[in-house]
Formats: sequence, structure tokens, C-alpha cells
Amino acid sequence: MRYPRAIEDLIAQLSDLPSVGPKTAERYVFYLLKQPAEKIRSLAAALNELKEKTTRCHLCQAFAESDPCPICRDPNRATGVLCLVENTEDLTAIEATGQFNGRYFVLNGLINTIEDIKPENLPLDKLGKKIKTEQIKEVVLALNFTLEGETTALYLNKILKDHLKITRLAKGLPAGSDLEYADELTLASAFKNRQEIK
Amino acid sequence: MRYPRAIEDLIAQLSDLPSVGPKTAERYVFYLLKQPAEKIRSLAAALNELKEKTTRCHLCQAFAESDPCPICRDPNRATGVLCLVENTEDLTAIEATGQFNGRYFVLNGLINTIEDIKPENLPLDKLGKKIKTEQIKEVVLALNFTLEGETTALYLNKILKDHLKITRLAKGLPAGSDLEYADELTLASAFKNRQEIK
Repeated sequence: MRYPRAIEDLIAQLSDLPSVGPKTAERYVFYLLKQPAEKIRSLAAALNELKEKTTRCHLCQAFAESDPCPICRDPNRATGVLCLVENTEDLTAIEATGQFNGRYFVLNGLINTIEDIKPENLPLDKLGKKIKTEQIKEVVLALNFTLEGETTALYLNKILKDHLKITRLAKGLPAGSDLEYADELTLASAFKNRQEIK
Repeated sequence: MRYPRAIEDLIAQLSDLPSVGPKTAERYVFYLLKQPAEKIRSLAAALNELKEKTTRCHLCQAFAESDPCPICRDPNRATGVLCLVENTEDLTAIEATGQFNGRYFVLNGLINTIEDIKPENLPLDKLGKKIKTEQIKEVVLALNFTLEGETTALYLNKILKDHLKITRLAKGLPAGSDLEYADELTLASAFKNRQEIK
């Protein structure tokens, strides 16, 4: 033990945060030590409130303030089309675009052979129930274009395609991008899926 | 507000940590949301204890569990030589080398014209008192080789050199370094201060 116990203890706990090592945690702790006591108490209080005031919506599995969440409760949301996302962050990113007026379903994970996440670890029974209850006709797979996202999309497409329409987000060049620096796969997708100017 | 209030609130507070932006804070919060409630409570408790169980040693100005700190209290520490550091982290780094058996003095800051930290903002009266009380004969300036460290070293050398011996940490090539990739200033210092092999 090199620092006073209270400092070492907090460093150890902050080191558990994603991509935070002991050096970064040390920096956080010494920054906090220089802050007024009130600020640290307020951070501790916010931490204590995090789980108390946040719940999971039993209908869409998103983190929310209430169950059901405001989106699942909203009668003005289009029914019949369901957007499938990996996590609440992705849901919020899509909401921010204002492009989608339907409801969501959050998988809270993707099929991942390395981390041993199999289809049965995903809440597919709840997804099936939501599809039935809300008479979903189209599922938009808004999953990452990573190995895990593609695997999950393939799997979901296989088990769902006979019952409803499955769509995916468009692959192509991102806004403001430079064609010269695009990778081959992206450019190939953008070319193949070229659209007519209307 | 995009996320539930408790989540937004914690993101805002964590964004104040050094080099943490809203995106990183969001990652921390969603990581925490997936942890058991006990773990978050324990982190909040560690935060609350940080200031309560940590004090500043009035003799050397370091963060410590007790005042005076274990080093200032230790009668076996060599007197007569004082190591001057910027902060408690630097003190701990020097302690870890096991090379120094004297006492320390922590400036908790360096002269910095951009951030408007002047010599009068440093605890120089406490430094003077420690030098007198402990009959210091040599002060080791263990300050960073940055603009702020050099400025502070120059200033301290000016006001102290008539009263006692002032030394600085050696400038040179770091352990395991490759001569070819060393910058000019470092290489020049290493050459100028070359040492006889004994």
C-alpha cells in the first residue's frame, strides 16, 4: 500500500471502470481530492441514486425511469414496426435522429462466441411476445456492423424471416466522408446500393 | 434530456473528471448500471470516505492518513536534506525508488504564468519554516522538466541558494531508451553530464 488507505481503496474501485487503469484512476482520485467536499458528496449521491431511480422496461428491455418506459407507453408511436437495437445507448442515438416513430426492443447483448454469449442468452422470448402483442409486421435490425452484430443479424433473420419483413440499416459512406479514404468494403456497399436521385 | 434523469445526472458529474467527456462518462454509467447494486454502493461509500479519511500533513503538505504524516513523524528519517516535489503522487513515486531517506516538502503546484500561479500562491512560508526547524542543509528539487517545473526550480534556486545547497534530479536518457530516438535536448544533457564508470 503506497497511498493512504482511503485513496488506495478508491483507486482500486475506479480501476474497474472500462478502459480505466490504476494510473487513470489515480488521476481521478487526486483531482477529486482537490475538489470541495460538497462536490464529492454529490457524486456519491448520484451513484447511489443510479440504480434506485433507473429500471428496465419489461416491454422493450431498455433502461428507463419508469416501467413501462415512455416510448412503450406512448399511444402515438407507430405500431407494426419494431426497431431492434443492442443497448439503450443505441436506442437513444436513433431517437435523436427523429427518423423513427415506432417502438424499440433492446437485446442488451449480441451473439458473441468469444464471450460465450449464445442466442439463448438473449431475451428472445420477450422479443417474440412483443412481436405477437403489438402485431409487428417489420423488424428493423439496427445492429452494429461488427462481427457480433452481423452474426446476431444473420441469426435473427433466419428465425424471423418466415413470419415478417426484416430490414437492416443502410451500409454506405458516412456523412462528410472522403471517398479516397473509405475502406473497400464500405465503398463496395455504397456502390452496390447506389440510389437514384429523385 | 435524453436518458433518464438519474443517468443524465451521473454522466454530467463524471464528465468533470480530468480528460473525461460526455461519451466516456456515458460508458462509465452504463457499465455501472450493469454491475450489482452492492458494487455501486461500495464506490459511493469510498468516495464519501475519501475526504473524511484523508488529510494534509501540516509539516510537508502531502495528502496523508494522519497529521503529521508517517514520514514527517519517523525519527529514523535523515534530517538535513529535504526533497521538494510538486505533489503527493511525485512524492510516492520517489518513495517507491527507495533511494531517498530524508523528508519531503510538497508544493501542491508550480509557478505557471498561463494559469496565473505566482510564487506567492505556493506554500513558501511553510517551506521556510520546515527548512529552519529541521536544519536543512540540502534541498533536492525533484520537479518536472517542464516549463512550469523549470521556472519554479529557477525561482527556488534564486531565493534559497545563498542559504543552502540546491541540487536537481539528473537529466539524461531514461532506462531502456534507444539513443537513436532520444530528443536533442535529452541527448545533449546526457552527453554533458556523462559519468565515469567506476
